[in-house]
Amino acid sequence: MTNERHAGKNKRESILKKDQFYLPEGVIYLDGNSLGPMPKAASSRVNKTVEDEWGEMLIKGWNDAGWMKQPSILGDKIGKLLGCAAGSTVLGDTLSVKVYQALAAALAMRPDRKIVLSDSGNFPSDLYIADGLLRTLKSGHELRVVAPEDVYDNITEDVAVVMLTQVDYRTGRMHDMNALTKATHDVGAVSIWDLAHSAGAVPVDMAASNAEFAVGCTYKYLNGGPGAPAFIYIRPDIADSVEPSLAGWLGHAQPFAFDLDYRPAPGIERMRVGTPPILQLAALETALAIWDGVSMDDVRAKSIALSELFIEGVEATCSQLKLISPRDSSQRGSQISFAFEHGYPAMQALIAAGVIGDFRAPDTMRFGFTPLYLDENDVKRAVEILADIMKNDTWKQPRFQKKGDVT
Amino acid sequence: MTNERHAGKNKRESILKKDQFYLPEGVIYLDGNSLGPMPKAASSRVNKTVEDEWGEMLIKGWNDAGWMKQPSILGDKIGKLLGCAAGSTVLGDTLSVKVYQALAAALAMRPDRKIVLSDSGNFPSDLYIADGLLRTLKSGHELRVVAPEDVYDNITEDVAVVMLTQVDYRTGRMHDMNALTKATHDVGAVSIWDLAHSAGAVPVDMAASNAEFAVGCTYKYLNGGPGAPAFIYIRPDIADSVEPSLAGWLGHAQPFAFDLDYRPAPGIERMRVGTPPILQLAALETALAIWDGVSMDDVRAKSIALSELFIEGVEATCSQLKLISPRDSSQRGSQISFAFEHGYPAMQALIAAGVIGDFRAPDTMRFGFTPLYLDENDVKRAVEILADIMKNDTWKQPRFQKKGDVT
Repeated sequence: MTNERHAGKNKRESILKKDQFYLPEGVIYLDGNSLGPMPKAASSRVNKTVEDEWGEMLIKGWNDAGWMKQPSILGDKIGKLLGCAAGSTVLGDTLSVKVYQALAAALAMRPDRKIVLSDSGNFPSDLYIADGLLRTLKSGHELRVVAPEDVYDNITEDVAVVMLTQVDYRTGRMHDMNALTKATHDVGAVSIWDLAHSAGAVPVDMAASNAEFAVGCTYKYLNGGPGAPAFIYIRPDIADSVEPSLAGWLGHAQPFAFDLDYRPAPGIERMRVGTPPILQLAALETALAIWDGVSMDDVRAKSIALSELFIEGVEATCSQLKLISPRDSSQRGSQISFAFEHGYPAMQALIAAGVIGDFRAPDTMRFGFTPLYLDENDVKRAVEILADIMKNDTWKQPRFQKKGDVT
Repeated sequence: MTNERHAGKNKRESILKKDQFYLPEGVIYLDGNSLGPMPKAASSRVNKTVEDEWGEMLIKGWNDAGWMKQPSILGDKIGKLLGCAAGSTVLGDTLSVKVYQALAAALAMRPDRKIVLSDSGNFPSDLYIADGLLRTLKSGHELRVVAPEDVYDNITEDVAVVMLTQVDYRTGRMHDMNALTKATHDVGAVSIWDLAHSAGAVPVDMAASNAEFAVGCTYKYLNGGPGAPAFIYIRPDIADSVEPSLAGWLGHAQPFAFDLDYRPAPGIERMRVGTPPILQLAALETALAIWDGVSMDDVRAKSIALSELFIEGVEATCSQLKLISPRDSSQRGSQISFAFEHGYPAMQALIAAGVIGDFRAPDTMRFGFTPLYLDENDVKRAVEILADIMKNDTWKQPRFQKKGDVT
């Protein structure tokens, strides 16, 4: 530990893996919190899967290319970044489906309680999924959505499940996972954490948190590519007693026995549902290889340094923009958001100038800080370009006013 | 119609698209009912998505490369092959997830009935999913599984949903979709068809069947690649009243408004859940392009011709193999199965000799017939090789006895 600390500066520098990612010429990418960039190794790896595996092996790829095991092998690589025990994390489906699986399982663990507690800073899909599940159950459950700062006080003894996203997708505000999980357990409720904006962004220790479930996606800070599968973690001591709602054949104890009756596979494997997306997993494999040996503490330190540099620069040069992320770096994840009434055209102007962030209605300009492929010079340059746009009112140009389908 | 019939022979010949698929040298591929082969265009198309779209466009790919619309655009291409109205089919997730969505929605349409009727010829995952949903609901539902030949007589007035796979994955036996759907509707129940072994294999007319729901996968006869997403169809007149159980954000009326409340998108779009798998969709796009303009009637005629040729050849030369598919071609899909006590090693020996079929426990050797890339010579050669293996007891060699993980 002493040695590690001693070597801190060098280690932090070594986490810059810019040479392993492809970034278009002239682009400063501050949207890795939405979709991470392409690892340079991705295209040849995916090509290998298409031509040498699918093309040459055909159906035999399931065994000979190891396709069937990819969700567990890569799941473990993600688990390792999140402090999950080996064999407790598996990949598949999308985050929304994984939220459904976790919540259905958690509710089944507390049949006498009817409240699901969440907050208005949760990603809307998590709330929609909870709402859809409760409407499907028709069992008198209630989804109680409170303000993020009121969560703690609303963890009461009638709550079955506390379902939260650790890092707010709008502001980057970060919940105290360990404290809230402890409060959840103190009232006998079950804890589910959505780590979409945490995985690869901030240090997480699932084992230490003692939470029962975690879910997340792999196309943000983990850089798995558009539509990369989601992950789900179940605390090992309860995994064998979890009842799968989505009882698909690949979560069966013996999928290829083709029994008519469902028997869940041991442990986390029961959270697998259907055929895994092999091309997506190939891309994700290259992204996760970059994370091998990377210390999340080093990522965190660098993320804070870059974020502080950005806040300082923007506040010094863009008085129209108001910081809405927590100013205290320990209270936020790896993104910085500013409110600006004309945030949409301003972001379009910024993107046109090569600095890619994104916009969230009604007025939020979001910027993600991703130490694997961003350095101080990128951040300084991004500030300069943003300052120039604000100073010159570039965003007022009509071409930046037109709304796209997706931001 | 007269002209079409007149031109029948030429049209049937024109459906052979062998030049558009990659097949390894010396391989006769009779397992397209499990995983279709790679379209030659797939690798460059996927590479374009990885390098030119993900790599160059980054987050902008969702709009600029049209990623967000792919599930609907490609869904419609599949719908067209299945007699679905435009705008009634969408892609996403896996078949097991789509079964769950359809069954949950169907049950919500008949709240006073508690029976889900299916059969023992259904793919096990469909039964597992039903079982998992009913256990999640805890509402006193019963999954009633009868023999395939007993389905008709068990469609009674207490049945809420009849959920069947049209073509039996083991034997190729095919249900009469229109007759069973009519019987289902006559008792006021809701009809769900799994078309996993139908799509791209046999003519289906969803509109004519009047069934409410259909689901299926795209990696079998449609050749979408390992882990290609599934599809779901809802009859257009009821789609707007279907309640999504998996209420994910991409099925929301305005996903990017980030409202806290869920409002389903109009029509079939509400069956979308989370972020679509863009690399898989790129591969699938090339596979579906090959189907453009292909007549399913022509595919069917050729499939029957190839199947008959195979049955005739095998029965003339391999007396140990017993046909377990229906002998009447109108009663089966596009696969032929034979029972053989030593089917596992026999299939391994056959695969080693370049003829790839597959094995399903306890004793079924399965062979799929896929007119897009198989011709009469392939079938004759496959018969010769199989006959040789049976005549020489090649399968008795120890190297063919060892069981793999997946067959």
